Amino acid sequence: MERFKLTLEYNGAAFHGWQRQANGISVQEAVEEAIRAFTGEDVTLAVAGRTDAGVHALGQVAHADIARPLKPYKVRDAINFHVRPHPVCVVEAEAVGEAFHARFGAKRRAYLYRILNRRAPAILDAGKVWHVPRPLDAAAMDRAAKALLGHHDFTSFRAAGCQADSALRTLDRLDVRRAGDEIHVETEARSFLYHQVRNMVGSLLQVGLGRWPESRMGRILAARDRAQAGETAPPEGLYFTRVDYDAVE
Amino acid sequence: MERFKLTLEYNGAAFHGWQRQANGISVQEAVEEAIRAFTGEDVTLAVAGRTDAGVHALGQVAHADIARPLKPYKVRDAINFHVRPHPVCVVEAEAVGEAFHARFGAKRRAYLYRILNRRAPAILDAGKVWHVPRPLDAAAMDRAAKALLGHHDFTSFRAAGCQADSALRTLDRLDVRRAGDEIHVETEARSFLYHQVRNMVGSLLQVGLGRWPESRMGRILAARDRAQAGETAPPEGLYFTRVDYDAVE
Repeated sequence: MERFKLTLEYNGAAFHGWQRQANGISVQEAVEEAIRAFTGEDVTLAVAGRTDAGVHALGQVAHADIARPLKPYKVRDAINFHVRPHPVCVVEAEAVGEAFHARFGAKRRAYLYRILNRRAPAILDAGKVWHVPRPLDAAAMDRAAKALLGHHDFTSFRAAGCQADSALRTLDRLDVRRAGDEIHVETEARSFLYHQVRNMVGSLLQVGLGRWPESRMGRILAARDRAQAGETAPPEGLYFTRVDYDAVE
Repeated sequence: MERFKLTLEYNGAAFHGWQRQANGISVQEAVEEAIRAFTGEDVTLAVAGRTDAGVHALGQVAHADIARPLKPYKVRDAINFHVRPHPVCVVEAEAVGEAFHARFGAKRRAYLYRILNRRAPAILDAGKVWHVPRPLDAAAMDRAAKALLGHHDFTSFRAAGCQADSALRTLDRLDVRRAGDEIHVETEARSFLYHQVRNMVGSLLQVGLGRWPESRMGRILAARDRAQAGETAPPEGLYFTRVDYDAVE
């Protein structure tokens, strides 16, 4: 039995989220079925981030235990062959020891949120960005974002369905910058609450539009009240970009 | 009558190229029909680059003469409304004098060619890049490219169907660089021959794979023989990115 670390890219629009469910194809099901197709094994993937329906990934990480002896590149290429036509692929497969755990060993998770900020709609990036036609002040959003850095109770940015025991999280990064026609929000933490990134973006949007003062972000955080924050930003702008692990021998 | 300069973005996969034709929807037809929908006028667009089927644009430029008095932002928004669901939009519309001509006034055209160079297939950028799974040496491609700079007879890189009177062109830029998993080829000239960019990329690919020495690019150019060059790179990696004009009063 060998444990493989799988780095995955997927188009969230085509899936009902990461996790297996009855009413539609999930990323987990697509990849597990691909593994079954060439190993004959019932594999259950562990994953760093159980992304929602519509959320994309550039660097999601999962692990799979496979009994059949296979080189990592064979695992990568075989999954990519059998998973078609679902829009998910293994960018990299690595043989790792059983001390590696994709979910519990993750020490930092990174997300990118892309806003297309122009009057014209998204064309080449349709379904890959949140289109916001009114002008946004990225510098004001960036300053406002800094109030959320550090160890806090993020109840105000937590979805009603969040099942975490505690709303305490440590936010290591929340940067907003303009990149041409787009505004990019980049954030990192050991872990996030359910909808936390999209809820932070939804509130930053109000600052960017000039409807809320920059100082309001700190007040929303202190209120510990979901009703104080902005609307949840849509999933199509969100990318799970990277997971960091401690080096495992 | 007012002349409007239109900067266009489109997804080439959805169109049978720029130019109107009988057997499928073209970008030209989609935009002209959108203009007709809110002006009632039969407008014929002039365009900087008559891109082929499958070729994308981020900064194509066309002009239209419209009799109905309209502000530029209204022209932009009205075309974007009426052109749906075709994947093309007006990023910017500007009122310009009749001295402006989208085709004949263009002094420089710029293209980007995107190669996805990794084993795993394109997922989020499916249809937007050329997937080349074998490793490419971008530095060797860049060095080889330099042999094509300057004023030359580009017969070797010209498609059989090219209708230009002369194959003499002046290539101002041909740069190849790695950008993460991708290799980007950026090129600029006053004008290009039919399939010239895709044919240059197809030959550079052979250098990148190590099949051809870097010095072969110069020999291909000197041969003035299409049979000496590589295969035409597919359209899905090609983007018409920018057109430069002299300032017009």
